[in-house]
Amino acid sequence: MTYLDWAATAPPDPEALDEQRRVALEFPGNPSSRHEAGAAARTALEAARSRLARAIGLSAKGLHFVSGGSEADAIPLLALLRKKAPGSLVVSAIEHAAVYEQSRVLERLGWNLREVRPDQDGRVRPENVADAIAPDTALVACMAVNNETGAVQPVREIAAAVKRAAKGRVPRFHVDAVQALGKLELGADGLGADSLAFSAHKIGGPRGTGALWLRSPVETLQSGGGQEGGIRPGTENLAGASAFALAAEKAAADLRAAREGAEALAEALLAGLKAIPGAAPLPLGRVPRDPRWSPWIVSFALPGLAGETSLRALSDSGFAVSTGSACSSASRERRVLDSMGVDRELSFSALRVSFGPGSTRAELDAFLEAVASIYRRFKA
Amino acid sequence: MTYLDWAATAPPDPEALDEQRRVALEFPGNPSSRHEAGAAARTALEAARSRLARAIGLSAKGLHFVSGGSEADAIPLLALLRKKAPGSLVVSAIEHAAVYEQSRVLERLGWNLREVRPDQDGRVRPENVADAIAPDTALVACMAVNNETGAVQPVREIAAAVKRAAKGRVPRFHVDAVQALGKLELGADGLGADSLAFSAHKIGGPRGTGALWLRSPVETLQSGGGQEGGIRPGTENLAGASAFALAAEKAAADLRAAREGAEALAEALLAGLKAIPGAAPLPLGRVPRDPRWSPWIVSFALPGLAGETSLRALSDSGFAVSTGSACSSASRERRVLDSMGVDRELSFSALRVSFGPGSTRAELDAFLEAVASIYRRFKA
Repeated sequence: MTYLDWAATAPPDPEALDEQRRVALEFPGNPSSRHEAGAAARTALEAARSRLARAIGLSAKGLHFVSGGSEADAIPLLALLRKKAPGSLVVSAIEHAAVYEQSRVLERLGWNLREVRPDQDGRVRPENVADAIAPDTALVACMAVNNETGAVQPVREIAAAVKRAAKGRVPRFHVDAVQALGKLELGADGLGADSLAFSAHKIGGPRGTGALWLRSPVETLQSGGGQEGGIRPGTENLAGASAFALAAEKAAADLRAAREGAEALAEALLAGLKAIPGAAPLPLGRVPRDPRWSPWIVSFALPGLAGETSLRALSDSGFAVSTGSACSSASRERRVLDSMGVDRELSFSALRVSFGPGSTRAELDAFLEAVASIYRRFKA
Repeated sequence: MTYLDWAATAPPDPEALDEQRRVALEFPGNPSSRHEAGAAARTALEAARSRLARAIGLSAKGLHFVSGGSEADAIPLLALLRKKAPGSLVVSAIEHAAVYEQSRVLERLGWNLREVRPDQDGRVRPENVADAIAPDTALVACMAVNNETGAVQPVREIAAAVKRAAKGRVPRFHVDAVQALGKLELGADGLGADSLAFSAHKIGGPRGTGALWLRSPVETLQSGGGQEGGIRPGTENLAGASAFALAAEKAAADLRAAREGAEALAEALLAGLKAIPGAAPLPLGRVPRDPRWSPWIVSFALPGLAGETSLRALSDSGFAVSTGSACSSASRERRVLDSMGVDRELSFSALRVSFGPGSTRAELDAFLEAVASIYRRFKA
């Protein structure tokens, strides 16, 4: 199977799995135990934290290991429930389900949810975020890179706009950086965010591991044994953390070359789509090598052919792509594209291709041939 | 290092780690993806669920993979916050921090927290639980096996007492079964509980994996991509789930023999303590082969010698034990022993020994010698 669904999950890097196994066997103690085996595990855990922090370019102090991207997103949102009374939160309309669905739960619990829609290019405008801020806004959330369109959000500008617009207390600004990790430079300022969510398995690390970076501590809702500085209870997954650090180091070392490789693939894909009559990139104006989009993710429409149908036909032909986020694959809604104002005729036919370090030009060419052939065969 | 701290974490079973690696490489897809790689991963995930359910003896339908025991405990408690108004919850005073600290957070959010203290033997009396139930009680929590004393709780009797005592709606009954899994028969009725929390790493499975069994669905607080029947958002940790299933199968296959082995070790330990002047089991009345205590966990006191000191001296001599729960090792309180009315003179000197499949009589004999020698040397 030709795998072009790296944004859903990256096939695990065998080196990361080796690291996971090695660390599990070498440090069998519980990092919270106070005997020698525990102390050794604690030392190894802090080493993994330092390595991951260095690879990402952030302080180790604020970096907390969690069970994955969804939990990293949930922690700052659920922390709002520690407040005495509900306030409001401002969330982009294109957030991953981990933020979007969680914010809807908060809404049902009395929070005032203000959604900010993106422009047609799939990007959220900082001034629109600023306009949504009220005196009682406790949190703003906007992801770094959209997982369906690849649209790179102007996160730093949003951070600045939030600060300027704040009436009274500055709301916390949470950024889901899952699709940015190992692909974009986050900068030493962490994009200006107060919290950043990361996932290991999107960059070849193991499932069940992620990280939440916090500029300053939050009072979390989930509470237990006090691990991870009180941010995330539960016995620390040291082996997963070490494997995550390794995967992040490899991604960081390779970032520039990998990015150029992805740009070349995205360029070839966009050019190839032009040669298929009717096919169109989503958003429609997307052009290659435009920094507004991550080259690792390209969505496109095959008008007249349901995305479901082409996904299955492609799968039968040996190509793995998606119609959108794997995390919302059960629902038929196309929330992200709808919020951009994409015509239903296009959005219902949308497919997402996403690249990874294993992706090649030969794979892409074969994929484009399959798309052209399936589109000819099935088009309504 | 002689490892006698299996209740904190079990050294990982290499076979479980092999399974984890094999499954990660063989099924690289996201179980929520709808292409072939996703479908294969989905099938493998459901196979792991069935295997784990069979090993535990519960229905696969109610079994949800989560990130660990702490999360499995948190989900039913946090679900209370979906209710329109706070009510009360009844929690034993000897719960693991994942339940105990979480219930205190709920208390700070307006919930009425009623704590039920155990008897001197460390066991919670069903009638005391029943007495604490009020018309607005939404949840009752009592663990299956206490992680510090090994006291086996009368969970089935508590379940029955809760039903009888309920005025109006029957509260949900949550049971942390982390120290029971693979050690006690849970029975096809799941001990009469409405929810059961399990952890993989306590039985040789990998960290970052656990399970929550639910008799009927709950409306959870954390929300996201809808994975695990909506109970636990986040890309499913298929490799961890498969390794957990394998570890549980091995534990189940070996349960009878392992139990006899643990009973023999506990008996030898209790006998050995008798031979050390001043040393005493905790609770004081504990005798070998009494079904009121899990043979895998034995606590004892060395009056006059701080648990901290003996733990370190033992660690320096190559023995890993604990003073209590690893998950509350940062705090100096001895909540569980205090709630049983154990004298401070005894509880401050308490040590916990816990056995696992790798524990041997030779290890134990060497340990007892070390304890005797350290106690003689350091005793105040």
